[in-house]
Amino acid sequence: MTTALANGVDTGALFATIDAVKADPRIAEFRFRATNTWVSGTHNRSTIDGFYGATQEMNHAEPRSYDADHPAVLVGADHGPTGPEFLLHALAACLTGGIANIAAARGVTLTEVSSTVEGDIDLRGILGLDEGVRNGFSQIRISFHLRGDDPAKLRDVVERSAARSAVLDVLTSGVAVRIDVDGG
Amino acid sequence: MTTALANGVDTGALFATIDAVKADPRIAEFRFRATNTWVSGTHNRSTIDGFYGATQEMNHAEPRSYDADHPAVLVGADHGPTGPEFLLHALAACLTGGIANIAAARGVTLTEVSSTVEGDIDLRGILGLDEGVRNGFSQIRISFHLRGDDPAKLRDVVERSAARSAVLDVLTSGVAVRIDVDGG
Repeated sequence: MTTALANGVDTGALFATIDAVKADPRIAEFRFRATNTWVSGTHNRSTIDGFYGATQEMNHAEPRSYDADHPAVLVGADHGPTGPEFLLHALAACLTGGIANIAAARGVTLTEVSSTVEGDIDLRGILGLDEGVRNGFSQIRISFHLRGDDPAKLRDVVERSAARSAVLDVLTSGVAVRIDVDGG
Repeated sequence: MTTALANGVDTGALFATIDAVKADPRIAEFRFRATNTWVSGTHNRSTIDGFYGATQEMNHAEPRSYDADHPAVLVGADHGPTGPEFLLHALAACLTGGIANIAAARGVTLTEVSSTVEGDIDLRGILGLDEGVRNGFSQIRISFHLRGDDPAKLRDVVERSAARSAVLDVLTSGVAVRIDVDGG
């Protein structure tokens, strides 16, 4: 489909997708996936490639691998960021993609979107030193800088993206996680 | 410090860190961070480098950047995985790092740790087509395959890692997220 791009978003294709899902809700059932392999110490690597969606197994343009590790101060070899840091990236990525789509759908011009996301964590939780301290972040903050259309419109776009963000929803409301173990 | 490595984990350094935090809890106050910049459409890029911890600003071994995007079926250019897929990677990475540390601390041998993590999401939520459908994952499942010591010990290690995982805690219990906007 060839349509005009708004902020790099193909709004014709976006609206066509919404119409297709209205006609057949099964198109909207997605299952995302990552596989992870331990390397050594806290160093491990995930690969993201296949996913299920639009009633079929699909693949990304290419398989991509991401190393994770602990920094030296946390007794790792720093072959990559920690899991919690990837979680912050996931949040920024989800909100920013939503901002671009929503701005395009509304005809709001964007010239610049950047953000800094940070999370506070007291490691006495995961070190098992204080049962009153949680394991995860006590708070996450994300600060957006946008330029383009008038400030009120830009703020409304961020607000709508937050109201429709998959990652923000999971982080603020939680999700059931099932863990299975094959130990041999 | 030179100590024996167990599963690639420097257990001497690990126990020394725990002792240091016991002596001064401020060492355990960490703040992780990512910065994100919109590229075009749903394509954006995060950089992870600096963090605060052990009472000072620190940096990873090198700054690292991660592209995120939507796949073509979701009207993106597929320059990278989606935010929700990075969230699955974050979970696998956090649990696997914990497994390695806990196994080492307990003297449990690991020869192999791999996992597949998947999450179900009905996109009618984020598309705004059904207010009864949540935006995020309805469920996440992670399936571990471990080899090394006897199966009961390996299962116990996974259970303990889950009980001390920063990412699992945030995903299952949620966290407050504050969003600030500078719209010009």
